[in-house]
Amino acid sequence: MNVPGLVQLDEWQSNYAHRVETMRTSAVRDLFAAASRTDIISLSGGMPNINRLPLDQVSQVVARAVLDEGVAALQYGDTSGREQTKQLVVKLMSDLSIAITPADVTITTGAQQALDLLGKTFINKGDVVITEGPTYLGALQAFSAYQPQIVTIPLDEEGMRTELLAAELERLGSRGAKFIYTVPNFQNPAGVTMSLRRRKHLLELARHYEILVVEDDPYGRLRYRGEPLPSLRSLDDHVVYLGTVSKVFAPGLRTGWVIAPHPVLARLNMVKQGTDLCGSALNQVIVEHYFNDIDWRANLNLLIEQYRLRRDAMLAALDELFPPEARWTHPEGGFFVWVTLPDYVDTTQMLPLALERGVTFVPGDGCYPAGSSLGKNAMRIAFCYEEPENLREAIGRLAAVIEKRLELCRIFVSAGLLKAS
Amino acid sequence: MNVPGLVQLDEWQSNYAHRVETMRTSAVRDLFAAASRTDIISLSGGMPNINRLPLDQVSQVVARAVLDEGVAALQYGDTSGREQTKQLVVKLMSDLSIAITPADVTITTGAQQALDLLGKTFINKGDVVITEGPTYLGALQAFSAYQPQIVTIPLDEEGMRTELLAAELERLGSRGAKFIYTVPNFQNPAGVTMSLRRRKHLLELARHYEILVVEDDPYGRLRYRGEPLPSLRSLDDHVVYLGTVSKVFAPGLRTGWVIAPHPVLARLNMVKQGTDLCGSALNQVIVEHYFNDIDWRANLNLLIEQYRLRRDAMLAALDELFPPEARWTHPEGGFFVWVTLPDYVDTTQMLPLALERGVTFVPGDGCYPAGSSLGKNAMRIAFCYEEPENLREAIGRLAAVIEKRLELCRIFVSAGLLKAS
Repeated sequence: MNVPGLVQLDEWQSNYAHRVETMRTSAVRDLFAAASRTDIISLSGGMPNINRLPLDQVSQVVARAVLDEGVAALQYGDTSGREQTKQLVVKLMSDLSIAITPADVTITTGAQQALDLLGKTFINKGDVVITEGPTYLGALQAFSAYQPQIVTIPLDEEGMRTELLAAELERLGSRGAKFIYTVPNFQNPAGVTMSLRRRKHLLELARHYEILVVEDDPYGRLRYRGEPLPSLRSLDDHVVYLGTVSKVFAPGLRTGWVIAPHPVLARLNMVKQGTDLCGSALNQVIVEHYFNDIDWRANLNLLIEQYRLRRDAMLAALDELFPPEARWTHPEGGFFVWVTLPDYVDTTQMLPLALERGVTFVPGDGCYPAGSSLGKNAMRIAFCYEEPENLREAIGRLAAVIEKRLELCRIFVSAGLLKAS
Repeated sequence: MNVPGLVQLDEWQSNYAHRVETMRTSAVRDLFAAASRTDIISLSGGMPNINRLPLDQVSQVVARAVLDEGVAALQYGDTSGREQTKQLVVKLMSDLSIAITPADVTITTGAQQALDLLGKTFINKGDVVITEGPTYLGALQAFSAYQPQIVTIPLDEEGMRTELLAAELERLGSRGAKFIYTVPNFQNPAGVTMSLRRRKHLLELARHYEILVVEDDPYGRLRYRGEPLPSLRSLDDHVVYLGTVSKVFAPGLRTGWVIAPHPVLARLNMVKQGTDLCGSALNQVIVEHYFNDIDWRANLNLLIEQYRLRRDAMLAALDELFPPEARWTHPEGGFFVWVTLPDYVDTTQMLPLALERGVTFVPGDGCYPAGSSLGKNAMRIAFCYEEPENLREAIGRLAAVIEKRLELCRIFVSAGLLKAS
């Protein structure tokens, strides 16, 4: 769409809504294009590896879905989703000790639609929304369309630092924020998992200050080390829970769900009606058949084995190849490692060099709200999509880029011209 | 979700965004539930009749789509849609003399998502948006989330009355509205088609006052009488055009598209990213295969034959059975007839009686913006979904309900206590 050398005039320039002015596109999504160059190893995308999905099985499932469900699979459906899909979600959630009925569920176009619907339903311009810092950039994009003030709470290896949350909530007061958004398991982008102690503290604070908690859990079933922790929703049924089949089956079906208190769900459904009338019945039928008819747990276990090897390969390569100034997280599951470099390094400036060397990553500042100065010295690297040997190669390339950047800085630091962080 | 006799307290009542307060759910969608009672004949739903879709063919198409396209059909994709789907849209649009390239297209989750994206991209609170009056209630729902002031321009059998539009635009001035939304072919809900003279006048006015035109064309290929008219987009490439496969293939695939000038499309894509990341790759692949591999025109022609019989049956029944006080439109295509009763009749009040008699319709006031007093004496009746004999029966039932309502009124009118409209 951008013809080089041709300045494109936009006669509608003055007509866009204010909300569009502050929006930015995702560096990750923009990098998807670059990542399709065959010589580049992508550490930027959060695409699940579905290369070993049994396509013949899936093909049979979708063919049977159409024949079995007939026109119901091809017709308009209920805005909140198919009853049978909700029943499946009830079953899937019981694995996580979340006890619900189909009436507690709305099926969405991926969990991303649920984020948009939550923003649309709750956020007036200027309202406070609390997230972890860093946080999922898709959530930032979804919420920012409704122009909130996003307050980030720093996290560490135990997840959101709830003692800092407590101070923030004390400052904001009761109902001083519209909701607290968290990815407690294998957080995107930081890879860390909220400890049980912090989970309980978070829920206690939310109850005390009467603030809604939104738990986004796309990776919960992808644990490679350690023991599972109870979901927030299983500890408190006031929590809004977001799930998706994207990482346990396939993202191309765009099937997610939101579990919420009934009055909240009623509002979300009303808002959803104007957004899409209804989701794809066919996709829902296929999801039902996949989880009901196929040994999906066996497929998932294969996937987990694969991801475990990749995670281990990436962490080993980081240990071996990354410079001593770098620190990084040690995820027990999910897709991502978060790397922090000295304060004086700007990872966005490093990106072109990395691309030149044939490796991509997500600069950390994209995982903070627009206008924040945080995350500039950090990066998200994903181990989900590449083979272990490629991961090792990519980490080597990235280490070389960082090393080159640090070399000069070290001289300045030793001369006292730069402060070591 | 509403347990009778149980008052449901909403602890988040004070927390919702202002935009939610004025939203209403669609009477049509709410009636879908009622319409599933087997004794009720539905004239309310706009569901296409897909009962004669060749399910075995479709089943083979979807199975092959998965095998042929492999993981690409199941993975995340580009926010703006698959290149191959855009190429298909280019081909489909050339039938309508709309000359575009894939770069002019974004694939959406049904045309409804395009309406939401347009609202999100253009509308600030209080901005003016112009629609026909009555207009598509899904568009009202989509736009109203962004709190515009919706100005309706009355229509007649020639579509939007552009001489009234001219007066309104003169009042609003250049760029005084964000866009003009129109369904020129077989309008939802009125069933009327904009004449060529009016099309040209509308485009002239839009150019003169520098206002974007949004052409929503879900029914364009469903013509049963008369000759096709050129689409607005084919007459002026500044027009934003919305299309969908919902009425020519199947709504369950939720596949629509928007054609727009490049700078507008770039904004829509950016906004779309935060809304859903991307649409369903699988649905897009299936749509590609259906239109590329199957004789879809033959299937469509069968559908048109069916709809033509239904349209004729409904118009004949109206002529024969409806009271002399009623007037109605004579659609040459699409799904809907718009009935106007005397001013003193309120069709919403008639709805419970109609349901009791076993027939549903859409009360006219739902097709005007909230707060408008227009359309109260009108109704939308759909001939798309029921067999001709059912349509005749339904029109008979509805006539009896109207007759009963008019009986008393006639006495009042003859006594001079009510003014005949």
